[in-house]
Amino acid sequence: MFKLYTAPGTCALATHITLEEAGADYTAERLNFKANQQNSPDYLAINPKGRVPALVTDRGVLTETPAMLAYIAQTLPKAKLAPLDDPFAFAQVQSFNSYLCSTVHVAHAHKMRGARWATEESSFADMKQMIPKTMGACFALIEQKMLKGPWVMGEQYTVCDPYLYTVSLWLEGDSVDINATPKVADHFKRMSERPAVRKVMDAQKA
Amino acid sequence: MFKLYTAPGTCALATHITLEEAGADYTAERLNFKANQQNSPDYLAINPKGRVPALVTDRGVLTETPAMLAYIAQTLPKAKLAPLDDPFAFAQVQSFNSYLCSTVHVAHAHKMRGARWATEESSFADMKQMIPKTMGACFALIEQKMLKGPWVMGEQYTVCDPYLYTVSLWLEGDSVDINATPKVADHFKRMSERPAVRKVMDAQKA
Repeated sequence: MFKLYTAPGTCALATHITLEEAGADYTAERLNFKANQQNSPDYLAINPKGRVPALVTDRGVLTETPAMLAYIAQTLPKAKLAPLDDPFAFAQVQSFNSYLCSTVHVAHAHKMRGARWATEESSFADMKQMIPKTMGACFALIEQKMLKGPWVMGEQYTVCDPYLYTVSLWLEGDSVDINATPKVADHFKRMSERPAVRKVMDAQKA
Repeated sequence: MFKLYTAPGTCALATHITLEEAGADYTAERLNFKANQQNSPDYLAINPKGRVPALVTDRGVLTETPAMLAYIAQTLPKAKLAPLDDPFAFAQVQSFNSYLCSTVHVAHAHKMRGARWATEESSFADMKQMIPKTMGACFALIEQKMLKGPWVMGEQYTVCDPYLYTVSLWLEGDSVDINATPKVADHFKRMSERPAVRKVMDAQKA
């Protein structure tokens, strides 16, 4: 039994979809970011980073999307969400997810979360104007060098796919035309049609 | 047989130490960042991200430190550099390394690499003045909530340890006093004394 802490519009969506795809026994609890619930004492006792996602397991709490995605794939192997018997292929999955968390998500975060790295309004404005360029460059690299198609790793759907979908959802708000990267656009459409994704997206809207 | 592309002062050190600790058969090639060799056509053909590290394996090239560290641990299991038979403990290793790459390394990068996310000199100066605060906060969290001691994961040395050591090396230049975090300071000293670390550090200076 898992409990996922989530919030709409965040990268927690990747783990939420993965739990659903894996057929996991889980509940999801939405934090109220407008009320700064992620920094409440109750939540900081669960995740001292004051962020989502956090995944409560029978063994303890996990944070960081790449770690959680690999963990779900490993503990629910029947869902075949990662190439668990091939260390090189598994490393390619991890490399892709690490790029999303350390480069793509970070680029995106400079739009609304500039106060993590600077203090002046002029700096925040400067960061914001870069978003279409930085996110566009990230997705050009994904399109040209990473996304094998139809899924990220090729024929086999893996935990990379809900994570890419989650980050692709940010493109419109970041003023990046997804159709400039046709493989990413196809991937996004294909993901949108999966029952697990529709179920989780409907739950987010509810 | 592995070939690691590296450069002094970068996070490639973590993988370099890990290869040494694992007893891997490897060579290391240093790129000349001053000559922008990381963006030369020859290197971009190996790693289109134009960054280090990149690890050439018999199966292909891997990038992203957390993926490479787990891969070395998995392919050279006798070195016992990760809890490979315990998915939750393995996820904790991955979570720690993911935090270093997506939060701590990113905080540090705002000192010299502001042009990744902004264009104005005033923004770069603003980012730079935040470094002691952001890096200090990251290491306070590591000290209080993550580093079990004596190694990151407790009694067992893992791939988290060379990665933390690599990032801890940046603290002095980032105007963060490592002695404000005594467990980190002890970890740093302990790492510095390991034969594998001394060998790699000496090779870097050569």
